[in-house]
Amino acid sequence: MTLFTTKTVAKLTIVIATVIVTSQSLAAEKTYRWRLAETWGPNFPVFGDTTKNLAAMVKKMSNGRLTIQVDSANKHKSALGIFDFVKSGQYQMGHSASYYWKGKNFNTMFFSTVPFGMTASEQNAWFYHGGGIELMEEVYKPYGLMSFPGGNTGVQMGGWFRKEIKSVDDLKGLKMRIPGFAGEVLAKLGAKPTNIPAGELYTALERNTIDALEWVGPSLDLRMGFHKIAPYYYTGWHEPATELQFMVNEKAYQTLPADLQEILTTAMRVSAYDMYAQSTHESAINLARIQTDFPNVEIRSFPAEVMQALRSANTQLLMESAAKDPMTAKILTSIADYTKNARAWTNFSDKAYLSIPSE
Amino acid sequence: MTLFTTKTVAKLTIVIATVIVTSQSLAAEKTYRWRLAETWGPNFPVFGDTTKNLAAMVKKMSNGRLTIQVDSANKHKSALGIFDFVKSGQYQMGHSASYYWKGKNFNTMFFSTVPFGMTASEQNAWFYHGGGIELMEEVYKPYGLMSFPGGNTGVQMGGWFRKEIKSVDDLKGLKMRIPGFAGEVLAKLGAKPTNIPAGELYTALERNTIDALEWVGPSLDLRMGFHKIAPYYYTGWHEPATELQFMVNEKAYQTLPADLQEILTTAMRVSAYDMYAQSTHESAINLARIQTDFPNVEIRSFPAEVMQALRSANTQLLMESAAKDPMTAKILTSIADYTKNARAWTNFSDKAYLSIPSE
Repeated sequence: MTLFTTKTVAKLTIVIATVIVTSQSLAAEKTYRWRLAETWGPNFPVFGDTTKNLAAMVKKMSNGRLTIQVDSANKHKSALGIFDFVKSGQYQMGHSASYYWKGKNFNTMFFSTVPFGMTASEQNAWFYHGGGIELMEEVYKPYGLMSFPGGNTGVQMGGWFRKEIKSVDDLKGLKMRIPGFAGEVLAKLGAKPTNIPAGELYTALERNTIDALEWVGPSLDLRMGFHKIAPYYYTGWHEPATELQFMVNEKAYQTLPADLQEILTTAMRVSAYDMYAQSTHESAINLARIQTDFPNVEIRSFPAEVMQALRSANTQLLMESAAKDPMTAKILTSIADYTKNARAWTNFSDKAYLSIPSE
Repeated sequence: MTLFTTKTVAKLTIVIATVIVTSQSLAAEKTYRWRLAETWGPNFPVFGDTTKNLAAMVKKMSNGRLTIQVDSANKHKSALGIFDFVKSGQYQMGHSASYYWKGKNFNTMFFSTVPFGMTASEQNAWFYHGGGIELMEEVYKPYGLMSFPGGNTGVQMGGWFRKEIKSVDDLKGLKMRIPGFAGEVLAKLGAKPTNIPAGELYTALERNTIDALEWVGPSLDLRMGFHKIAPYYYTGWHEPATELQFMVNEKAYQTLPADLQEILTTAMRVSAYDMYAQSTHESAINLARIQTDFPNVEIRSFPAEVMQALRSANTQLLMESAAKDPMTAKILTSIADYTKNARAWTNFSDKAYLSIPSE
């Protein structure tokens, strides 16, 4: 039988208690330090505010147990490398736009926007109540990726044109910076779509390397200066509600405890919604500035004949795509069916309201 | 010198360790059990889903440290007692609509919606970027209350009418259930606005006690059955974007640690946004059902002459209110200034897009 003195017992107790307290704290305070790669450069307006908003909310809600360090394109050096960064786990998450991954999987394209497709409120209803989120999950799952809405720009403008577009003939030979699917639609009508990096756009337009370009809308266009050299600003058709994207590595997500998973998904959803409110605000004030400071800028809509031609070309291209891949057909059918009902409602609600004659 | 055996030491250690672990857990696991009183009855669609959504998110994100028990009107027996319940601290929070408190403070009315005012996307931009939240805070602070957006219905329909409205003359003597400020606008044009409890509306309309009524929109109107007895369904003007309200007792809020405060405010914001997506969805599918199953229902907009008369009466009433109270003037000026810029953008974005001729 071993015997102990009071002093020894007291010491032993302190040692044991310390061990227990430390392990308890470690369990409760286990922190997760995540990194997010974004397509945008540092301090990019609106889009970049969205990732800052996300990171701040997550940190506060988790009391610092989950932190997200945001790396902009100047840091990771690959604006369009987000898909691969997150797939490989080099970054636990990313912020970009789904239609940038068209080359990897054509069907990713439909979760950003579709020419002549849904408005922001219709698209949110489709995502969260019409099966959109589930279809997006189906497309991304094979890559070990989770994809979530990442913030809406609202209707993107049709672009800045140096000359007025009066007919479909005016599109023939038109050199326009308009990437992706919308570029293919314009090509069908004889235009020459190109893609040019953001930093070279102004000079290209000024030197007539291109005749027109589309960027986003007043929220982001004003700082680019296009209004100084291209007086015709056309309303939108090709990106009626562009939704950015949060991407998460599925394995990394599974390592989080349930409360942090809920904090992360909630923060992504609300920062996406928040971005649409901010986009609306920035577009409203920047449009007012353009109209006040640059009264020569004329805002127009394409003539009905041009819109009809664009719509027909778009429908034809979408149908060709659907014929090639059952998953494309499934997504496009879902969008078409949903839009039919949602648009009937939008027409009787927002459109009818906005059509009331002003005083 | 006291001596201990090995067995005694082991026992002592367990007792001390247990005490330490328990106190640690108590500190980390301190829970807050909140109660929320809502204006709505149990299982009320859309509005009631919003409080369930909030409570579920908060519980998951806080790992059960903050729980919110939702009491519907059948439980607390006072649908319009929410303001007082939360002010007194009887409930820590509530879910209702700001314009119900017009009798307590006229200025609460403007944080729900204003006739001929902003759409949902414009109003969210105003709340979060145009000073709306700050004005709401100023109005509610004297009551020890915090108020937050609580979910948007989208454009509310102008109502169900048994007879067609062809001119302003048709409004004279019209008995219509339309409460609040919009009722005052109609009264200026000779109508007889009344308020009738929800449960008696159908019978009142059927028995010609009233000639017309407004409720919400397809999302909530379909279950009320009005389409069976009033074939004219008019588009909206008086509630272009009704925002419900979360109310929080400020003292109760201050007792929460910072992480739970952030979890609560984030969950309120996202469940409000979520409700707008759900409202859009439910209106879309219910409108389709009405149009399919009840082809006799005609959806109309009031003639331009009627809209102009309603708008003028509304402007006059708002100006009279602004002249009586500087805070009313301040809020209405903020709304008018913001709407001017935001509407210019909405017209060039959503309205222009929705006006593209269909195929």
